[in-house]
Amino acid sequence: MAVFADTPGARIARGVCRWLSDAGAAPLTEFSPAPGLRVDVAALGPDGTVSVIECKSSLADFRADLKWRGYLPWCDAFWFAVGPEFPVEALPQDEGVLVADDWGAEPLRLPTPRPLAPARRRALTLRIGRAAALRLRRFEDPGAPPSV
Amino acid sequence: MAVFADTPGARIARGVCRWLSDAGAAPLTEFSPAPGLRVDVAALGPDGTVSVIECKSSLADFRADLKWRGYLPWCDAFWFAVGPEFPVEALPQDEGVLVADDWGAEPLRLPTPRPLAPARRRALTLRIGRAAALRLRRFEDPGAPPSV
Repeated sequence: MAVFADTPGARIARGVCRWLSDAGAAPLTEFSPAPGLRVDVAALGPDGTVSVIECKSSLADFRADLKWRGYLPWCDAFWFAVGPEFPVEALPQDEGVLVADDWGAEPLRLPTPRPLAPARRRALTLRIGRAAALRLRRFEDPGAPPSV
Repeated sequence: MAVFADTPGARIARGVCRWLSDAGAAPLTEFSPAPGLRVDVAALGPDGTVSVIECKSSLADFRADLKWRGYLPWCDAFWFAVGPEFPVEALPQDEGVLVADDWGAEPLRLPTPRPLAPARRRALTLRIGRAAALRLRRFEDPGAPPSV
């Protein structure tokens, strides 16, 4: 899902990020926790908790996703975020559910906590922080040559 | 120093950030490591090292800064960054020196390493990462209402 495009998934991601920010978490879209993996939204909570949120614009979108279980080892809390029309009963019971629109989101079901090992949480925190800082530079210094 | 303005200090900060990015570090300008403190540039290295760089556009600017020693407990490595005309012999011998311009920077003297305690480095990494992610949101979603 390309979260910068004006697609249903992108609008869900926008609402999710607004909710996360309001809730005190710092969201980063399109984050790669490890080579070959890319989650729609990752977030660093004030207490250091790492959350991952996958945005599903439709049941077909959810069913086509064969990768989401691979994200579970990379977060303390995993959520699906769906639009208001989504049949939420189709979603796995153990994962969190957010109902989102363009403007925000609301939690419908809390995720089962699966605390990360401290070493992995530290590595992920560094990786999220570095990715956010480097992406921010592209906005703050658009004339910079690409880093080698 | 306001690093977004087109001041001599801001131009030094821009060169410093380009050098940091090229060197594999992820820079964040105007970072507050603790209440009441604000450094010109903080950076997360690939290995998690936290660097702080203070930009000094002139000897007067350096001499007017009574706060820089207060930043030492908040980084593994501390650098001054100055323009090519700066009399570098006026800078303290134990700190790193970068000579910077609008386009980049070069290390003139390496800083004395002062490794942070792991708990503080973890807390700083989270704080830098959250600050970068939240600042990035302002660019990626400029229409978002300010978080409460």
